[in-house]
Amino acid sequence: MAALTEFEVIERFFRRPSGSATLGIGDDAALVALSPGCELAVSVDMLVSGRHFFANDDPESIGHKTLAVNLSDMAAIGATPRWALLAGALPEVDTVWLAAFARGLFALADAHHVELIGGDTTRGPLTLSVTILGEVPTGQALLRSGAKPGDSIWVSGRLGDAALALAHAQRQLALHIEELAACARALSMPIPRVALGERLRGIATAAIDISDGLTGDLGHVLHASGVGATIDLAAIPRGAAMKRLLSGAERELALRCLLAGGDDYELCFTVPRGRDSSLGDLARELGLALARIGTIDDRAGIVVRDESGRDLADLPRGFDHFAP
Amino acid sequence: MAALTEFEVIERFFRRPSGSATLGIGDDAALVALSPGCELAVSVDMLVSGRHFFANDDPESIGHKTLAVNLSDMAAIGATPRWALLAGALPEVDTVWLAAFARGLFALADAHHVELIGGDTTRGPLTLSVTILGEVPTGQALLRSGAKPGDSIWVSGRLGDAALALAHAQRQLALHIEELAACARALSMPIPRVALGERLRGIATAAIDISDGLTGDLGHVLHASGVGATIDLAAIPRGAAMKRLLSGAERELALRCLLAGGDDYELCFTVPRGRDSSLGDLARELGLALARIGTIDDRAGIVVRDESGRDLADLPRGFDHFAP
Repeated sequence: MAALTEFEVIERFFRRPSGSATLGIGDDAALVALSPGCELAVSVDMLVSGRHFFANDDPESIGHKTLAVNLSDMAAIGATPRWALLAGALPEVDTVWLAAFARGLFALADAHHVELIGGDTTRGPLTLSVTILGEVPTGQALLRSGAKPGDSIWVSGRLGDAALALAHAQRQLALHIEELAACARALSMPIPRVALGERLRGIATAAIDISDGLTGDLGHVLHASGVGATIDLAAIPRGAAMKRLLSGAERELALRCLLAGGDDYELCFTVPRGRDSSLGDLARELGLALARIGTIDDRAGIVVRDESGRDLADLPRGFDHFAP
Repeated sequence: MAALTEFEVIERFFRRPSGSATLGIGDDAALVALSPGCELAVSVDMLVSGRHFFANDDPESIGHKTLAVNLSDMAAIGATPRWALLAGALPEVDTVWLAAFARGLFALADAHHVELIGGDTTRGPLTLSVTILGEVPTGQALLRSGAKPGDSIWVSGRLGDAALALAHAQRQLALHIEELAACARALSMPIPRVALGERLRGIATAAIDISDGLTGDLGHVLHASGVGATIDLAAIPRGAAMKRLLSGAERELALRCLLAGGDDYELCFTVPRGRDSSLGDLARELGLALARIGTIDDRAGIVVRDESGRDLADLPRGFDHFAP
């Protein structure tokens, strides 16, 4: 079989009948109309082979994750994702790989009623970039800048599993087989908290998704809001592997995964103290654990209190994509 | 000096005071409001080092071209570009390179009142992707699908110079020094025809930008419109270098550059025969050459008549980014 052209790659794997878009893939640009009373929320992420995923990862999970990280940005700003565009550099046209990648991407897109409306493919080192477009009622977006002293700090799900899976893959620690299954899933198939982001409109004063680690991403909220935070280490939600490692010889590394591990894609958000009680109902309704982990205060910086009430020294830093 | 973090790269080189956007760089997503009565036009392009530019090219011209190819997509659909997002994988944080790249990108953005509202940077093989957002009055976009038999086919500027510069760089032919200056500029600093695209609303029946070569891109219009075309080779606008080469021993290669050379970023568009006369006025007003190169007909495919009225055999194909 002759190699597919760029045009044929898009036609065969990524073009589908148009849904809500006025014009989808196949012209110089896509056209969409916004719902009345809404602003457009837009974000872009770039994933590089060997840095955000491994070249030999299951292509279906790469397709999932490529879109998931962008959906997570929509969740973090409280927007409803609507449309996506995909740009990809591929080392070769591997139809088996492309079919699996598209399957993973479209499964997640379909689950969120997101339509792929644009694409560009070229030959090059495996690099994937998704632009996500969403809608949010005008003025209701969840910004990083609204946290106030006295607000409670909450996170969804549990933290650090993805970082543990990565540490295991890099032979920095050894997970048991059932621990690995749970953690590897967090790393390769993260679940963007879209419904939570939508429901936090009008409740949360600030929000961010945890892509680079709790302390780093919460730090962005604190910086934008001009406030500080005190975190209760024992309140940070964690899985079985994290619990075991935190009470053992690998506690330092586990702490780093819990506090600064990237790729969790849970939401961290702040709510006025008086709204805390409503979050229990929301957690039950969404079937998603929500945990109160600390309080916003007016002293700059992050203090983490350990299990015995002492301040943790030397907080681990967030993940930086330029770190070697 | 310590290496800059990902966050600092965006802050230092790409973040500017917000303009028309509700929320620019610095949160999980940007927020923009559309003008009343407009649809959103959106497109993405990916440029890979060694394929769309050379790693040792002037970074200012790389910055220009990275945005120019996207502005050209807005021109081709008749949209007014408004906002852009940049995703980049960079092999290292080279502040001199980044400053020059940003200078080239922002010079072109400013000239078109386009605001950079989002960005993502990571370490990786040099790969750049811009998403462009624009506005077009609802229902007035220039699609590929509207060409009708009898319509005239027009192109802006002149074709093939960028391909000649590339052929020179690859030692397939030798340009004279003053020819090289003109052709190299077409390759590295293409001018997106934004004002032309906006003015063609209500006039053109179909439009596309010539990024992959005239025959290939016109072919997309013909396919989408269900029509064919006859092109008059002598009417295709060309520069001095192209004229010299077409009448010499390198005619075959020159013909390929003229008919199928990528990277011109001129517009190819169709207009009802009765509107031909208005294009002379438009050309004078925009200070941009516009040439009528052929006619849409109802027989599928492209026929190119050479200078003596004979059909050219073996039309060169358009540029394919997956070709080796």
